[in-house]
Amino acid sequence: MAEVIIHKSKLFSNLNILKNTIKAQIAAVIKDNAYGHGIVEISNLLVEFGISSVFVKNNFEANLVRDKFEHITILYPDSFENISDNIYLSISSIEALEKLEKNVGIELKVNTGMNRNGIESSQLELALNIIKSRNIRLIGVFSHNAYGDSGENGTLVSDFIKQQELFSKIKSQVIEFTLNNNLPKPRFHSLSSSGAIKLKDIDDDLVRIGIAMYGYLGYKCEIETALKPIAEVWSEKISSRFLAKGSKIGYEGKYILENDCIVSSYDIGYGDGFFRLKEGQDLHTKEGFKILPRMSMDSTSIISNENKVCVLYDANKMANVFGTISYEILCRISPFIKRIIKD
Amino acid sequence: MAEVIIHKSKLFSNLNILKNTIKAQIAAVIKDNAYGHGIVEISNLLVEFGISSVFVKNNFEANLVRDKFEHITILYPDSFENISDNIYLSISSIEALEKLEKNVGIELKVNTGMNRNGIESSQLELALNIIKSRNIRLIGVFSHNAYGDSGENGTLVSDFIKQQELFSKIKSQVIEFTLNNNLPKPRFHSLSSSGAIKLKDIDDDLVRIGIAMYGYLGYKCEIETALKPIAEVWSEKISSRFLAKGSKIGYEGKYILENDCIVSSYDIGYGDGFFRLKEGQDLHTKEGFKILPRMSMDSTSIISNENKVCVLYDANKMANVFGTISYEILCRISPFIKRIIKD
Repeated sequence: MAEVIIHKSKLFSNLNILKNTIKAQIAAVIKDNAYGHGIVEISNLLVEFGISSVFVKNNFEANLVRDKFEHITILYPDSFENISDNIYLSISSIEALEKLEKNVGIELKVNTGMNRNGIESSQLELALNIIKSRNIRLIGVFSHNAYGDSGENGTLVSDFIKQQELFSKIKSQVIEFTLNNNLPKPRFHSLSSSGAIKLKDIDDDLVRIGIAMYGYLGYKCEIETALKPIAEVWSEKISSRFLAKGSKIGYEGKYILENDCIVSSYDIGYGDGFFRLKEGQDLHTKEGFKILPRMSMDSTSIISNENKVCVLYDANKMANVFGTISYEILCRISPFIKRIIKD
Repeated sequence: MAEVIIHKSKLFSNLNILKNTIKAQIAAVIKDNAYGHGIVEISNLLVEFGISSVFVKNNFEANLVRDKFEHITILYPDSFENISDNIYLSISSIEALEKLEKNVGIELKVNTGMNRNGIESSQLELALNIIKSRNIRLIGVFSHNAYGDSGENGTLVSDFIKQQELFSKIKSQVIEFTLNNNLPKPRFHSLSSSGAIKLKDIDDDLVRIGIAMYGYLGYKCEIETALKPIAEVWSEKISSRFLAKGSKIGYEGKYILENDCIVSSYDIGYGDGFFRLKEGQDLHTKEGFKILPRMSMDSTSIISNENKVCVLYDANKMANVFGTISYEILCRISPFIKRIIKD
């Protein structure tokens, strides 16, 4: 049976590195099944480490971890009803604000330049007035800087700085409004892993750490080298056979063996969230065994006779093969594969 | 909230086309969450249509549908214990045979040339003797022809025919063994959608229909034109904004607007099983709205102001954009998106 092994010591080491580097409270991003690692398993470890604030994808994920954290923000809420007091809805439009029930806790998302989600800064005054008049609890105001990964050698590009400057103005406006209206000051946040590591003087209340906690970062630096991937995917042998040089393997016989060898099939395929390896793509297990194209939906041929092999250990390496990024490799790992925590 | 719409009438139409074309019993392949369509929802429809034999991925999937079908084969069993009488284990190696409990029902997989799973035909005699001596119930003997999709204009390539000839020999050997040992004759099957449609004279007991039932086929022909995709993925607007020509959108501002327009973000991303659309890849919704790279994990910008848009309606079109096949597009659709059955 295939398994996802989560290395607790590596997660804790990553979190300690980040805690020592970043001068702001660390909140954990556990959306999309904790970037494919397993939201419940990762949450249990985060609680043990002492994380109290998390960000999840939707109401379903919030309910899975509702009893574990002090603060849970749903980034993409799909229902506005029956929300516990420790769960907040990310609100991205005036229309959504107008649908909210009294007393619901929200984090208002403001667009500062990614031009994807959030209200415009020009709508901020309107939004704050709606929040006040509808008795909505404004827990946070946040944005998402699109340029954390941009810039050579850990530098910040001008688009990054422009977004932070706009967010700074938004903060002042919100603080003035809450003071004038005798409302509690919300928390402010705008940075995710890369931006939080690059920016030395953070004056937000917290940073949202996702990918770095799982052991990856979008740009090369000392921290990136120190962070270690916390997950490995292991796969088990289904059957083995000795095959002669020239034997064809898999659909349409597209892989032709270059030497006599033992080839085994393992219980993992693109149906388990892997990319469908095909001709011309070169991929090996952690042990160095060649993974043979074409991958099937549920099984994969590997030049190996081991009972178990490690098929995913470095999402960056795999991302390079498939022309994508570690995030996509990780969050695809099937939720139906068993997660095992190792110390 | 994003939704997967399953069109019942299209599924039934596909099944009727296949029933009228293929001269053998049709068993349904519902592994990998019914190729991403939703195993429970599809199973309910298959029961209504009158399908009694299905193939699932693992024990977890078998248990989800255990009360719905007369015959359920687990293609990749991950446990050999507590197996109901109507559930059979696909067995692919002599080692696995030797681990089985008395009376368990199995389908013995034999390698006829795909060189991936199954025992070798040279091991057949040994396997049959183990089955007999351990009182295992041999429900089926099967293979998987790797060359159903190969060959121009619906022709069969020589590798396809070679595999069928070997399977024919295997059948004779099994029948002789069961006759000599007073055992019930097992069912035989070797063909999936393409092979079953191409081969006019099928002398297997059943065929395993997966992709064709969902509306796709690996090669062009009349049947392929008649089959209709049964699933659509719809996504809902999160927020909208008017953006001027030259505005940058998304991570690292990689998409730059060519005209002034309204751009909305929708609640679907690569975390929901889509491929991460990036620069140079051209994709549109069913309505013709341009989907803008780079896709985020949970949201996507589209040049549209609609409340809902259809982001997946033809898996072949999408597969072309990402250099893959419809199977991979479909089976990736997140199991966490709600499935809605429409007549």
